[in-house]
Amino acid sequence: MRVDCKRVWLMLLVIAPVALEAQNAANGKSYGEIAEKITKAALRTDHAYQLLREVTALGPRLSGSPQAAAAVELTRQMMARLQFANVRLQPIMVPHWVRGPSEEAAIINSPSQGNVALTVCALGGSIATPELGLAAEVVEVKSFEELRALGKKAAGKIIFFNQPFDPAQFETFAGYGGAVNQRGSGAIEAAKAGGVAALVRSMTPGLDDFPHTGGMRYADDVPKIPAAAISTLDAELLSKILAHDKAVNLRLKLTCQTLIDAPSANVLGELLGSEKPEEVIVIGGHLDSWDKGTGAHDDGAGCVQSIEAVRLLKMLDLKPKRTIRAVMFMNEENGLRGGIEYAREAREKKEQHVAAIESDRGGFAPRGFSVESDSTTWLKIAAWRTIFESIGAERITRGGSGADISVLVRDGVPGLGLVPESHRYFDYHHSDNDTIDKVHPRELQLGAAAMAIMAYLISEEF
Amino acid sequence: MRVDCKRVWLMLLVIAPVALEAQNAANGKSYGEIAEKITKAALRTDHAYQLLREVTALGPRLSGSPQAAAAVELTRQMMARLQFANVRLQPIMVPHWVRGPSEEAAIINSPSQGNVALTVCALGGSIATPELGLAAEVVEVKSFEELRALGKKAAGKIIFFNQPFDPAQFETFAGYGGAVNQRGSGAIEAAKAGGVAALVRSMTPGLDDFPHTGGMRYADDVPKIPAAAISTLDAELLSKILAHDKAVNLRLKLTCQTLIDAPSANVLGELLGSEKPEEVIVIGGHLDSWDKGTGAHDDGAGCVQSIEAVRLLKMLDLKPKRTIRAVMFMNEENGLRGGIEYAREAREKKEQHVAAIESDRGGFAPRGFSVESDSTTWLKIAAWRTIFESIGAERITRGGSGADISVLVRDGVPGLGLVPESHRYFDYHHSDNDTIDKVHPRELQLGAAAMAIMAYLISEEF
Repeated sequence: MRVDCKRVWLMLLVIAPVALEAQNAANGKSYGEIAEKITKAALRTDHAYQLLREVTALGPRLSGSPQAAAAVELTRQMMARLQFANVRLQPIMVPHWVRGPSEEAAIINSPSQGNVALTVCALGGSIATPELGLAAEVVEVKSFEELRALGKKAAGKIIFFNQPFDPAQFETFAGYGGAVNQRGSGAIEAAKAGGVAALVRSMTPGLDDFPHTGGMRYADDVPKIPAAAISTLDAELLSKILAHDKAVNLRLKLTCQTLIDAPSANVLGELLGSEKPEEVIVIGGHLDSWDKGTGAHDDGAGCVQSIEAVRLLKMLDLKPKRTIRAVMFMNEENGLRGGIEYAREAREKKEQHVAAIESDRGGFAPRGFSVESDSTTWLKIAAWRTIFESIGAERITRGGSGADISVLVRDGVPGLGLVPESHRYFDYHHSDNDTIDKVHPRELQLGAAAMAIMAYLISEEF
Repeated sequence: MRVDCKRVWLMLLVIAPVALEAQNAANGKSYGEIAEKITKAALRTDHAYQLLREVTALGPRLSGSPQAAAAVELTRQMMARLQFANVRLQPIMVPHWVRGPSEEAAIINSPSQGNVALTVCALGGSIATPELGLAAEVVEVKSFEELRALGKKAAGKIIFFNQPFDPAQFETFAGYGGAVNQRGSGAIEAAKAGGVAALVRSMTPGLDDFPHTGGMRYADDVPKIPAAAISTLDAELLSKILAHDKAVNLRLKLTCQTLIDAPSANVLGELLGSEKPEEVIVIGGHLDSWDKGTGAHDDGAGCVQSIEAVRLLKMLDLKPKRTIRAVMFMNEENGLRGGIEYAREAREKKEQHVAAIESDRGGFAPRGFSVESDSTTWLKIAAWRTIFESIGAERITRGGSGADISVLVRDGVPGLGLVPESHRYFDYHHSDNDTIDKVHPRELQLGAAAMAIMAYLISEEF
C-alpha cells in the first residue's frame, strides 16, 4: 500500500508542472509569472485599504440612506480619478427601510430574575411594535418543527428561535447556512403559529453581546409581526432563565419602518478589452451594507477589491483582450435591486458577458474560488489551480458564486465567488463590529490580486 | 492546448481519490473520517484558547524570569489535570537577560527638528549603554555592504540599519528572513566598522510605533556595543531627518544586562502508544517568550496547541500505536537550551524518535506543514495531502521545521513545522502587541487539530 501511494504521488508530481507549463500567455510570460507580478504589485501597496478607509468613513450604507448615496458618488469619483473607462451610474430604485429614531429595547420579567434588559435590534425589513412596545410570554424553540409541535401553546407568544450556529463546520458559511432560515423565515413561521413577535438568536458562532441584524421576509398570506435579533450571550441567558422560571414575559420595542422606495444606483467602470472590448467580465461587490458597523468586510472589502483588481491590471499594463468591468452593486442586503437591474440591462442591450466574479465573503486572505457554471467551464477554470498556488488561492471548487451576480448566472453567465478564509467573518457580520480595524491590508490586497489574476485568465483563455 | 489541459486535469481528478482511498486506518475508519472527527471535536470547543488565557495571564515569559518559572509549573499542572502520562520536568539552566529597571530612551538632536524622542527598546542580549547614555552621530545604512563601503566614516558613529522587510513576499517569513540578519549580526558588523552602537529597524512589514525586539549576537573577537530596535514609524522619520539634515546626533540609553544563568525546565507529558510505546512522536512549542507583550502567538499558541492536540486524541479514544509526547520547550528565543537538552537526553537514553512536530509560526488558521526530512519520508507525508484538505492544511512542502526540534532533526529525526496563515504574524511578533486578543479561538483550535491529525498519521503509518 505504501508503495502504491508513493507511486501515485510521484505521478502527481510529474503531472502538475505539465498543467502549469501548458498555461502560457501569448505575450511571452507564463501565467504563473503574470500571477506573481500581480501578487507582488498588490503586496507592495495598501491601496485597497486606503479606498476602504474612504468608503467606511461615510458610515453604514443601508440602501436608501444618505450614506449609501454618498458611497455611490465616492466610488464613481474613485473610478474616475483612477481613469477607468466608461465610468457611469446605473440608476435604480431601492427599498428604504429605517431602524427609526428611538432606542430599541427588550426587557424580560421573570419570577427569579425580575427585570433584565436584553441586547436586541430589529431585523432588516421588520415592522415596528406598537409605540409603547409589545408584551407577551416568551416560548423558546430550536426549529420550525419544534414550533409546529407546540400547537396552540404558541398562540399569543413571542417565539424565541434559539438554534445555534454549528461551530463544528469547518466553513463558517455552512454553519450560517444551517441556522439562517430562522432569521429569514422566523417571522412567517411564528405568525403562522399564532405568535405575536419573533426573537432570533444572532447568526454568529461565538458568544458576544452584539445583536447581528440581517434580512427577513414576510409572506402575503400571513400576518406581519415584528422580528428582532438577540445577541448570542443574551440568547444563552434567556434560555437559562426560561429553563428555570415557569413564565417569562418580554416587552419588545422596535421603531423601524419601511418608507417609499428611494433612488440609488449601481456604479460601473471599465478597463477596455484590447481585442474583444464588446465581451465583458464583471468583477464586483456590493456597495450597500446593513446599518450596524460600517460594512467593512460586508461588503466594502469586495467593492474596493474590485476597483483595486482593475487598477492593478491597468497599472501593470497587461492589456486584457476582453473588457473587465468593476461593478459596485447596490442593495444586495435587502432587495437585490442592483443585481436585478444590471442583468436586465445586459439582456436588453444584448451585452456579451463572459463571466462574473464577486467578492462578498469578507476581505480575508483568499483561499480560492467557488465556481457556478456548467462542467466544461468549471473544468477549464479548475485547471488553473496551480497558477493560484503562489497566492494561496488554489481551492477552486464548484458551488454558489454571489448574490449580486446570481441573476447573470441564471441567464447563463459563469459566476465565480472569491472564497477567503472564513473563521472570523461571522464575528463581525451585520453587527457593530464590522469595522475597518478588522480588515488586514495584506489580506485585502491579496484578495484583489486573486480577482485580478482570475479576471485576466478568463479574459485571455475563454 | 486547451484540450491538453483538460485531459491533464481529468487525470488529476481520477488519481486524487485513489490516493485518498489508499489511506485506510486499521480500525475500520478511513483517515479522512478520523481527520474530520478530530476537526469537528476541535471546533466544538475553545479549550486551547482557554489554556492560552491561563498562560498569557502570567505575563511575558522571558527565560529566567519568575513568569517563565510560573509557566513551567502552570503547564505541568495543565498536563497533570488532563491526565497525560509521565508528566515531568526536564531541568536546564537558561541565559538570564533582563531589560533593566530604568526607561529605555533614544533622543535625536538635529538642526531642523531639535530634540525628538524615538520609540526604541534594547535587542535581547544587548549590553547596556553607560548610565547616562551614549551620544554619537547617526549614520544610516541598508545593508552590511553599504556599511563596509563607508570605511572610516562609520567610526565613532551609531549605525542605523534601515533595510525594510520586503512586503512583496507572499510568505511574511520570507520577508523576515530577508531582513533579520541586520538584527542578529548588526552589532557585530557595526562594531567591526568602528561603530559605537547599533540601531535596527523593527522586523515588521507594516508601519507602527512599537519597537519589535528579538535576539542578537556578539562575536568573541569584536567589541560588544549596545543594540536597540527602533519602531518602523520612527525608522522612517529618522531616515527622513537624516536625508534633510547634515548631522543628526542621538543619545541612547539602555539599562539591560545579562545575569548569571537561571534554573528552568522543559515540560513533558504523554499519550502512551498502544502498540509501540517506546517509539515517540514529539509535538511541541516553546514556553518562553520575549518580554514584550505576553507571547500569545509566539509561542503560547504552539504550547497550548500541542497540549490540545494530545487532549483531542485522548478524548476521542483514538489510541495511537506510538507515544505522542507534548513538549513545552524552554528558551527558544535566546539560547535554545531546551531544544538542545531535549535532544541530548534523547540520545543519552537512546529513545526512539519517529518524528517531531513544532508549532512556532503563530496561532492562525493552518495552511499546511513544512517537512524537514529525507525524500522518502517527505514523499510519504506529502501523499497525505488530501487528508488535510478538509481542514485547509493541505500545503505540505519541504523546508525548515522549527528551532526547538532542529537538534533532533540534526540527529536524523524527521521534523515538521505547522505552517499557518502568516499575514498578520509580524504585526505582533516580539512586540507589545503579541497579546491574546490577536488570537482567534477557531484558528487556534484548527492548528491543534491539524497537529493531532499529523501526529496520528505518523503514529499509524511510519
